[in-house]
Amino acid sequence: MTAVTGATADIATFVLKTGYADLPAAVRKEGLRSFFNIVGCTVGGAKHEAIEATWRALAPFGGEPHATLIGRRAKSDALTACLVNTLASSIYTYDDTHAEAVIHPAGPVMGAVLAVAERQKVSGADLLAAFTLGIEIACRLSKAVSVSPAEGIIAWSQTGICCGVGAAAAAGKLIGLDAKGLRFAMGIAASQASGIRAMHGSMCTANMPAHAGQSGLRAAYLAKAGFTASEGAFEGRYGFANCFSKKPELSHLTNGLGSHWEALANTYKPYPCGIVIHPMIDAALALKREHAIDGAQVEAVTVKAAPVALALCDRRHPKDELEGQVSLYQWIAAAVVRGRAGIPEGGDAAIGDPVLVAFRDRITAGIDPSMPADGTDMSITLKGGRKLEKSVRHCVGSRTNPMTDAQLGAKFADQSIAIIGKPATDDLMAQCWGIEALPDAAALLALAAG
Amino acid sequence: MTAVTGATADIATFVLKTGYADLPAAVRKEGLRSFFNIVGCTVGGAKHEAIEATWRALAPFGGEPHATLIGRRAKSDALTACLVNTLASSIYTYDDTHAEAVIHPAGPVMGAVLAVAERQKVSGADLLAAFTLGIEIACRLSKAVSVSPAEGIIAWSQTGICCGVGAAAAAGKLIGLDAKGLRFAMGIAASQASGIRAMHGSMCTANMPAHAGQSGLRAAYLAKAGFTASEGAFEGRYGFANCFSKKPELSHLTNGLGSHWEALANTYKPYPCGIVIHPMIDAALALKREHAIDGAQVEAVTVKAAPVALALCDRRHPKDELEGQVSLYQWIAAAVVRGRAGIPEGGDAAIGDPVLVAFRDRITAGIDPSMPADGTDMSITLKGGRKLEKSVRHCVGSRTNPMTDAQLGAKFADQSIAIIGKPATDDLMAQCWGIEALPDAAALLALAAG
Repeated sequence: MTAVTGATADIATFVLKTGYADLPAAVRKEGLRSFFNIVGCTVGGAKHEAIEATWRALAPFGGEPHATLIGRRAKSDALTACLVNTLASSIYTYDDTHAEAVIHPAGPVMGAVLAVAERQKVSGADLLAAFTLGIEIACRLSKAVSVSPAEGIIAWSQTGICCGVGAAAAAGKLIGLDAKGLRFAMGIAASQASGIRAMHGSMCTANMPAHAGQSGLRAAYLAKAGFTASEGAFEGRYGFANCFSKKPELSHLTNGLGSHWEALANTYKPYPCGIVIHPMIDAALALKREHAIDGAQVEAVTVKAAPVALALCDRRHPKDELEGQVSLYQWIAAAVVRGRAGIPEGGDAAIGDPVLVAFRDRITAGIDPSMPADGTDMSITLKGGRKLEKSVRHCVGSRTNPMTDAQLGAKFADQSIAIIGKPATDDLMAQCWGIEALPDAAALLALAAG
Repeated sequence: MTAVTGATADIATFVLKTGYADLPAAVRKEGLRSFFNIVGCTVGGAKHEAIEATWRALAPFGGEPHATLIGRRAKSDALTACLVNTLASSIYTYDDTHAEAVIHPAGPVMGAVLAVAERQKVSGADLLAAFTLGIEIACRLSKAVSVSPAEGIIAWSQTGICCGVGAAAAAGKLIGLDAKGLRFAMGIAASQASGIRAMHGSMCTANMPAHAGQSGLRAAYLAKAGFTASEGAFEGRYGFANCFSKKPELSHLTNGLGSHWEALANTYKPYPCGIVIHPMIDAALALKREHAIDGAQVEAVTVKAAPVALALCDRRHPKDELEGQVSLYQWIAAAVVRGRAGIPEGGDAAIGDPVLVAFRDRITAGIDPSMPADGTDMSITLKGGRKLEKSVRHCVGSRTNPMTDAQLGAKFADQSIAIIGKPATDDLMAQCWGIEALPDAAALLALAAG
């Protein structure tokens, strides 16, 4: 037997040898924040119409009810639960973002590891380690195929194409795959990697992460049962890297494994919409607050943004909530007129609010090629000609200006109380923050069930 | 409401308005041959190790046993059955091929429509119409993204990326989606389209069609329950066509819908291995037969082949059966030495047979850029210097030289008798040929169960 080498093998070895005790304190902490944030988002999304539709469609096919559908007082088999929970985690696009990798990594990995934790006993520390490693692999993989933005970072859903592998790595570690099995699991997941950006603005936006989570989890169980894949899923000829990128950079996959951590760069969204809109919301909310602006007195809003912001969110009149998530006009209008940018501001009622509809037409968005994705320059002209200006360089929730633990807590509570009530929310938040000490991570799910 | 136009909408409209009565006789006939062939392959593959592994992995998650696992005396939920049956249909790569689209379209579509037929009553004629239309859409979609071979026809598994949409179209038609619902179903399937060629030679080769079939079926049920996708899944900005091809030709999707039929170009494999190897097997079997060649007397074999044949199957010493499926050396060796090229010649025992292993080293394969994919020039040099030559231009099973119904029957029986016995095989073959008249297509599955 010759030793198996290459990126796929190196990743498998790294994932298996790295335990919770091996994670640097800062990595544990950011993994924990990622986990806390995404569980809150999952509770918050649990009753969304898209999840209702999915459950109507899939319940008739579900297996024995061993796994919790978060926030729904229902159970199904682990694969179905993984799909539904991951869908809920991202349906409001309120989740998390690794900005450089253009990916929302936590949801699919969470869906997979929680499902495993109801099939076998998994300690909180082990779950958190697997979860953090899954995020690490997904982000590295995305960077490996997105180094050349013009060649695909917009075309593919990076979350869709990369997170199945992350979920497979995390689940595979928990269910005890050996190195070969983990290579196979990641290969099976890579062969089902999918997601196209055209789906933005529809329920499918959240179905791509959901599919990633479920296919990754299934890949791990398939590999456990002896199902095989090619050994070099990432680096092989016609492998993942060459298929998804014209200029793959495999070094992002393996350089500095164990010393450099992409998981540290995960960030959390303060507003439930496309992250490139966030600096604009910051600017609008600040101007509203500082000048007590009356929306009816606004004649025009001009905003300069990074090119990627317009590429993704230049949608002036969204037809519904899902299109609204990627409409910079809707969120600027809501922030200026209402002084808020929460889930209600993205709901169908707000999308159709005649005041906001009219306001959207007063906004002009342009590109500033030198603007970073977490910045914007905004100018508001009032009737009578007074001009108010605000520059944002690192919006709230960016890497440089991250949400605090307290802000994450407020965000969690805001979403969760409406679904499972305050007592369960308080308990669940405490258990999430303290997951490291849980002997059995499934305890979380009993609370999260609602 | 403005009318929805574009390739996705046109396809949906066409699929819904076209019934069995609208299919030209030749199209019905080829659809029937495609169906007959793939059912036989599914029975034949039912007990393969990869299917055993899949069932071990997935049975614990399966739902109520309404749907038949062909050839396995077992049932599961429709989604799981679809996955397992489609996997079985292609595990020996004995299935079907649309040569120009480089796709094996029947398996995933069959998996989906048979699963539907056990959820609701579907007549044989309706099932065959949906099946044929699903093949039509999958082949058209593959042609649309494969016009420029250098840009992806080898990199992606065309079956993996295109057949989910075909399965969604077929299943969606049967479950009664309206035009909007069918657009959504195809969009959901497109957002899960996946498959990378690096998986060739592993069980994942068959898992890519299996995933396509299941994700297409699920997409149809999701759309039925109200799950949405973007309206322009194929042609939209960052849509399927632009993501999977640098030079998409959307005209292939819609030109001549209803008058020009890609389904007529489907062909069936006489040998259980990569189709580009088939002309070499024809040549070797012919020389063996004509000259009663003793393999031990062969000094060298030289073969000139189309570039695609070497790109896909230039694997001199496969390590197992699955790699053997894409090793031209294995099959030439078996044909010359044994005078046979059936399932046993691709089995692990044959892969490891020292006589064949040694023979493989006596074969030289080269490229002739002018050679069509269904042709080859072979030269065998015997000890003592005698040279035998054979040119094949249209191998058995090619479009120009298709397998006859009798040959399809022999192939079906050869695979099926070993799994479900001769009486059930005889009945099943008769029911498949006569499916047009079946009031309830589920009757087939009772026989195929084994």
